Amino acid sequence: MSTSVKRYPGTERMSNMVAYNGMLLTKGITARGLPRDIKEQTADVLRQLDVLLAEAGLSKENLLQVMIWISDTRDFDAMNEVYDAWVAQGFQPVRACVESALASPDLLIEIQASAALA
Amino acid sequence: MSTSVKRYPGTERMSNMVAYNGMLLTKGITARGLPRDIKEQTADVLRQLDVLLAEAGLSKENLLQVMIWISDTRDFDAMNEVYDAWVAQGFQPVRACVESALASPDLLIEIQASAALA
Amino acid sequence: MSTSVKRYPGTERMSNMVAYNGMLLTKGITARGLPRDIKEQTADVLRQLDVLLAEAGLSKENLLQVMIWISDTRDFDAMNEVYDAWVAQGFQPVRACVESALASPDLLIEIQASAALA
Repeated sequence: MSTSVKRYPGTERMSNMVAYNGMLLTKGITARGLPRDIKEQTADVLRQLDVLLAEAGLSKENLLQVMIWISDTRDFDAMNEVYDAWVAQGFQPVRACVESALASPDLLIEIQASAALA
Repeated sequence: MSTSVKRYPGTERMSNMVAYNGMLLTKGITARGLPRDIKEQTADVLRQLDVLLAEAGLSKENLLQVMIWISDTRDFDAMNEVYDAWVAQGFQPVRACVESALASPDLLIEIQASAALA
Repeated sequence: MSTSVKRYPGTERMSNMVAYNGMLLTKGITARGLPRDIKEQTADVLRQLDVLLAEAGLSKENLLQVMIWISDTRDFDAMNEVYDAWVAQGFQPVRACVESALASPDLLIEIQASAALA
């Protein structure tokens, strides 16, 4: 049993975030309300990410790594339009973005991130 | 050359696990014997994960992050039934689950995990 | 704002690498010039990874984790032929490889890696 891990409660299935050894890891975040537009889903996911980071006393300037799954690569440019306007210049995390079908066909994007706690 | 990394031998292609800086990372684990059922494959992968964690002196209570790929999102609910019964309440890792075809068409699920060494 | 993260500038969209807390993380690397052959793309991506690691004073012997996405699982064996000849015996990272469509249909492979800084 690890007592040095701080877990931010989410559901019975997963924590929202875990903090350990100077690093914060988030769950895979998907959009709420499921607007049918990739830009709206991207903006919603990034808003949730901002809120989670703030809950840990951090901001997007602390991000280390961002993993993006989109359900259709044709959404790549529209997603990037929202992402590029959001990412903090001078504090860009590394990133990978690939296509994967997500848990429900209504989900167009899922993002998981890690951030530095210090 | 890094001498501070502990590598748990696997194949010539990859280590089974690496331990470094308080963190344990596993390879992507797939089912053995390839039962055609998603629940059986999920249970087998989680059993292998339990064994790997034990080899490092850990248990599922140490998990930080779990990445799940399933080859067909229609298996999502059945996979979750096995996963939810397995995950340690109070010690849930963060999680993401997306659809990807895997190395062989017989593979229905692949899981990669990270855990806290302390 | 985190001042303890070293970011290796890439584009406005993402850093090429971030170093933090003893760990180096790379961006998702894709092939340049887009040869139509999976072996050539794999070799190009691994060459870029070698160069990035060298820029951080590291080599493939420091690798902890390698994530591989290929756009067609039928390329799995040919990709592995190049990968297996490249990976440092005795220093194998953990690995996962799944199929995902990538940002452009010309891209056959994308690799993201993490390495130990010490």
